[in-house]
Amino acid sequence: MTHKIAILGASGYTGAELVRLIAGHPNMEIVALAAERKAGQSMADVFPHLRHMDLPRLCRIDEIDFGSVDLCFCALPHKTSQEIIRDLPKTLKIVDLSADFRLRDPDAYETWYGNPHVALECQEEAVYGLTEFYREEICAARLVAGTGCNAATGQYALRPLIAAGVIGLDDIILDLKCGVSGAGRALKENLLHAELSEGTNAYAVGGTHRHLGEFDQEFSKLAGRPVRVQFTPHLIPVNRGILATTYVSGNAQDIHDTLTAAYADETFVEVLPFGQTPSTHHVRGSNFCHIGVTGDRIEGRAIVVAALDNLTKGSSGQALQNANLMLGEEEVTGLMMAPLFP
Amino acid sequence: MTHKIAILGASGYTGAELVRLIAGHPNMEIVALAAERKAGQSMADVFPHLRHMDLPRLCRIDEIDFGSVDLCFCALPHKTSQEIIRDLPKTLKIVDLSADFRLRDPDAYETWYGNPHVALECQEEAVYGLTEFYREEICAARLVAGTGCNAATGQYALRPLIAAGVIGLDDIILDLKCGVSGAGRALKENLLHAELSEGTNAYAVGGTHRHLGEFDQEFSKLAGRPVRVQFTPHLIPVNRGILATTYVSGNAQDIHDTLTAAYADETFVEVLPFGQTPSTHHVRGSNFCHIGVTGDRIEGRAIVVAALDNLTKGSSGQALQNANLMLGEEEVTGLMMAPLFP
Amino acid sequence: MTHKIAILGASGYTGAELVRLIAGHPNMEIVALAAERKAGQSMADVFPHLRHMDLPRLCRIDEIDFGSVDLCFCALPHKTSQEIIRDLPKTLKIVDLSADFRLRDPDAYETWYGNPHVALECQEEAVYGLTEFYREEICAARLVAGTGCNAATGQYALRPLIAAGVIGLDDIILDLKCGVSGAGRALKENLLHAELSEGTNAYAVGGTHRHLGEFDQEFSKLAGRPVRVQFTPHLIPVNRGILATTYVSGNAQDIHDTLTAAYADETFVEVLPFGQTPSTHHVRGSNFCHIGVTGDRIEGRAIVVAALDNLTKGSSGQALQNANLMLGEEEVTGLMMAPLFP
Amino acid sequence: MTHKIAILGASGYTGAELVRLIAGHPNMEIVALAAERKAGQSMADVFPHLRHMDLPRLCRIDEIDFGSVDLCFCALPHKTSQEIIRDLPKTLKIVDLSADFRLRDPDAYETWYGNPHVALECQEEAVYGLTEFYREEICAARLVAGTGCNAATGQYALRPLIAAGVIGLDDIILDLKCGVSGAGRALKENLLHAELSEGTNAYAVGGTHRHLGEFDQEFSKLAGRPVRVQFTPHLIPVNRGILATTYVSGNAQDIHDTLTAAYADETFVEVLPFGQTPSTHHVRGSNFCHIGVTGDRIEGRAIVVAALDNLTKGSSGQALQNANLMLGEEEVTGLMMAPLFP
Repeated sequence: MTHKIAILGASGYTGAELVRLIAGHPNMEIVALAAERKAGQSMADVFPHLRHMDLPRLCRIDEIDFGSVDLCFCALPHKTSQEIIRDLPKTLKIVDLSADFRLRDPDAYETWYGNPHVALECQEEAVYGLTEFYREEICAARLVAGTGCNAATGQYALRPLIAAGVIGLDDIILDLKCGVSGAGRALKENLLHAELSEGTNAYAVGGTHRHLGEFDQEFSKLAGRPVRVQFTPHLIPVNRGILATTYVSGNAQDIHDTLTAAYADETFVEVLPFGQTPSTHHVRGSNFCHIGVTGDRIEGRAIVVAALDNLTKGSSGQALQNANLMLGEEEVTGLMMAPLFP
Repeated sequence: MTHKIAILGASGYTGAELVRLIAGHPNMEIVALAAERKAGQSMADVFPHLRHMDLPRLCRIDEIDFGSVDLCFCALPHKTSQEIIRDLPKTLKIVDLSADFRLRDPDAYETWYGNPHVALECQEEAVYGLTEFYREEICAARLVAGTGCNAATGQYALRPLIAAGVIGLDDIILDLKCGVSGAGRALKENLLHAELSEGTNAYAVGGTHRHLGEFDQEFSKLAGRPVRVQFTPHLIPVNRGILATTYVSGNAQDIHDTLTAAYADETFVEVLPFGQTPSTHHVRGSNFCHIGVTGDRIEGRAIVVAALDNLTKGSSGQALQNANLMLGEEEVTGLMMAPLFP
Repeated sequence: MTHKIAILGASGYTGAELVRLIAGHPNMEIVALAAERKAGQSMADVFPHLRHMDLPRLCRIDEIDFGSVDLCFCALPHKTSQEIIRDLPKTLKIVDLSADFRLRDPDAYETWYGNPHVALECQEEAVYGLTEFYREEICAARLVAGTGCNAATGQYALRPLIAAGVIGLDDIILDLKCGVSGAGRALKENLLHAELSEGTNAYAVGGTHRHLGEFDQEFSKLAGRPVRVQFTPHLIPVNRGILATTYVSGNAQDIHDTLTAAYADETFVEVLPFGQTPSTHHVRGSNFCHIGVTGDRIEGRAIVVAALDNLTKGSSGQALQNANLMLGEEEVTGLMMAPLFP
Repeated sequence: MTHKIAILGASGYTGAELVRLIAGHPNMEIVALAAERKAGQSMADVFPHLRHMDLPRLCRIDEIDFGSVDLCFCALPHKTSQEIIRDLPKTLKIVDLSADFRLRDPDAYETWYGNPHVALECQEEAVYGLTEFYREEICAARLVAGTGCNAATGQYALRPLIAAGVIGLDDIILDLKCGVSGAGRALKENLLHAELSEGTNAYAVGGTHRHLGEFDQEFSKLAGRPVRVQFTPHLIPVNRGILATTYVSGNAQDIHDTLTAAYADETFVEVLPFGQTPSTHHVRGSNFCHIGVTGDRIEGRAIVVAALDNLTKGSSGQALQNANLMLGEEEVTGLMMAPLFP
């Protein structure tokens, strides 16, 4: 059986990545691609790397017949997403890649994103889309909220450790190195090649990055008490990839054992042998997340490093993994491609 | 039916690329991976991006039971390749990725490569592996010689034009821009990141690049008279991709028509609308070749630009395409993945 | 004696490069920096790499007291430049970095740039700014028109050869590889890091690039007959640098001799030993141009390759070199910094 | 008066950087360049970007007449350095760029570097070369030990804070992002462009990086008690630049005030306005270090980020700064060039 798929926001990087992945999925067919400002254009005009595919022309959202759609990926900006999703048929399965349905608490949403939430009913039913930890809820969900790509990376490193109580909760530091595609296709001066290549800098320093809303929500829920981490993202001159270097207190061997056990049955999360560290080079273009654990020379301190591709495991691959569950497909279908190296 | 596959030279980039591609092939199974100097190591040690795969450990070639192998990819250096292939079972199907069996004339081989050929019998039966132009011979072949990656790019741009007689034969210029993975994983100073990034230079200037042997052989055969082109490769700071800018005399519209007709039924070669030019960005990691034609302001001059990924369509993807034909599989099986962008 | 310098268009890359260079000039002082849209900001806000310098705040052009300025660099967009320069004091020395005064023929200007010229009187007196070839005129000039960066690179390779009659005039091909800073700081999708890094493409294919106006003018003047070259620029993922690979007919040794003699007394143009080829890596951030000559395997064909930094020798360094002459300074003052490598 | 300068180890990146810098120094003249394995070659062969300079041919160390040398820069590998320096004339002024004389305690040296020290007498007299903090000793020194580039970056961020007692001493974390030139010109697989570009990874994780010996020594001395920091370096795909993100406890405003006061009179260390963060883009090729301070959302936690160019301020620029002091020159002579951007 072939599932009919629509993608809203098809002219951005996560939209294109969804198309790339679905192209390799045996049981999905893209029936609609929406991009308001580019409606009427062919996908080959917007993304020439997809020119070999037989795809519907870009259209406006209101041109889509959602009655014949089985599942809709929504890759629109936050705020727009909730306005659109609120008005979609209430029976339509939706995987949202925006930030709009990630935070359970509407006040937290408004605090981090600056605007009041206008689709509270949808938010109510949304399931947080970190597949490995919400698998059952996702299978039964109508609306799944894809996680932030930084938020995903940090959580893969830390969730099992917080849940198992093997690390201290009051001195967690996440130092992230992020590829530029995470910032999207927007025309900003700091994203120009001449400005961004050949250097690096921190941004959103001091606890102002919006993905902290997700860390706070999820880590506190796991711990059963408020947990607030320090998180500093850095922009590095690579297109894809996030490396999360996390500094924690705890016994490094226990930490490694805990992670190894937690991910033993997971296809996409690989815990490296103790003392090895991952590289974003080795997950590029794939749905894999590599995790490494090393003990520090300082007794009781450890470093946990996680690497994934922000466009795949961090957003569109995760979205497809969730869609598979929602549609009764094998979770891994269409997602087993090996990373591209070099 | 599953074909048993061996790869010799599995620790280089083309070897790793073969593994990546075969991982997505439904009817192939890798049963042996050889790499003399790294024998005994796991593939994950040598290429951590393949760590999720269940692969045989690296071994020496003499440890392989070729009786249970259906097809062998040989990704060894030239000269070594002929010595190894000479001694492999004469019934074994082989796709060679080296330069050793590309040139029909042993003297030409010695001229370009500096050493006499020691496997003339194999060379005799070898078929030149540019799939779209040797399809029938490849289907029937036991030994296929994969083309040079630069040679492939130039030929996709020019073969139909020479065959159709729509361009002049005495003033063809190929200016190529080549990604660094084409130089392999060898430790050379000029391949260091600090030396190679942030700049470009020509190399093998003046008609000394070995792939000219292939151009001479193939273009002369097509034209029925000697054809010698000017060819200058340049090293650019990208990992994958070759862009061939070819300068020819002829009517641009005729040229475009000829290419469009020649590739009308080809899955992997896309001729862009007249006046558009391709980019290596849009073929990365894929088996596609994009070709564009533009007329120059100077009457009777045209520019034909071809782009492909040197590791995929330029070598390992081509090799798999040929192996499919040799094994009676659909030619495109395992090769339809979309390019990775960005 | 210290010359008072003003820079109009100080918020672009050529403006910043002028500031960087003048900072090392013992006899120049920047007294005004204009940037209409960013007037009021400090230069450190716009270019943090200049924060250690004591510079005037950015202002509007009409705020500048040109009576106290000795020389004005104008780094504004074409069309705007002529409108501004027309209204500047007629006694003010000006080095213009735009395209507005490069072409002697107003019709040629309109053909290539699309708008009629509105400052014909200034155009009349402007001197073409390729220092090594217009040195005397520049010394005496009030208004010098900086050359296009591509135009400069191609001319360094070819002018002495055309002047000496050692190459054919009807089959000259220039294939250029250009760093991204040449496109300026404008917000365009194809200049984003995610779009531009890790790949290459040709642009303005077929003889449509505006710098052809300069090639036509200068080469025809030198030859005493119309000369039209084929010229294809390519965008490569480096910030600085142009490599011009030129294909010509002629005797390679004569060509090398001619270039060696032509540049024997030039500080900034280095002709490499016969058979060596230059790299943009080795001129980055400097005012040097390296040129290499190689004979092709095809009798009577040669390749001449020139490399320079588009922001330095290709624009702002050239501009300072010209300003030195106009102000009676040593031509090389402030310009002898070594390239930055790696 | 012109000082006669020798450089030992001139074929590495720090050697070439010294030549680049000294080229702009009015009172220094390079009289000898040694590189054992490349003795006899011209510097232009080894570093074509220096071809415009009139430099002595590379020689062996034993060919140098040290009697006519005023100051010798030693840019050799550790272990070799001490063996060479031990045998140089005892009156010769030396700036060593290796690790051999950085650690005061010979046991600490052996612990971190694995070999016993064989030039204890020299080690005794050596002065640690972090100019801003050892200025007086350096002025009087015969032998100055240049600091590690990572060690320098971290110390610029933290020394004044430890000295002033405004941060906690037991929870300091340094997460560094390092450009590849810091690893030198050695042929290692992980330094190849194809392996290193387009990704990032941590290395020497867990407190094993040798520069920790310097942090331990200097921070403990400042604090008057043992201080051990956590330090994780990461390799990023840029050629030059180190960004040190340091996580500390303390009042962010006090921290900013302390740093601002400490560096108020320093030419090369710039403390940004509170809340701004530096970028390695803005110090490339220069001798400047930019420092930013931001308070975290977590009360009592702050982030201090320092950026410098590892080849300039982190090694060769620092070395020249020290040489200036040792020779009675102005400290900043030859070092005021602006960063190269873009």
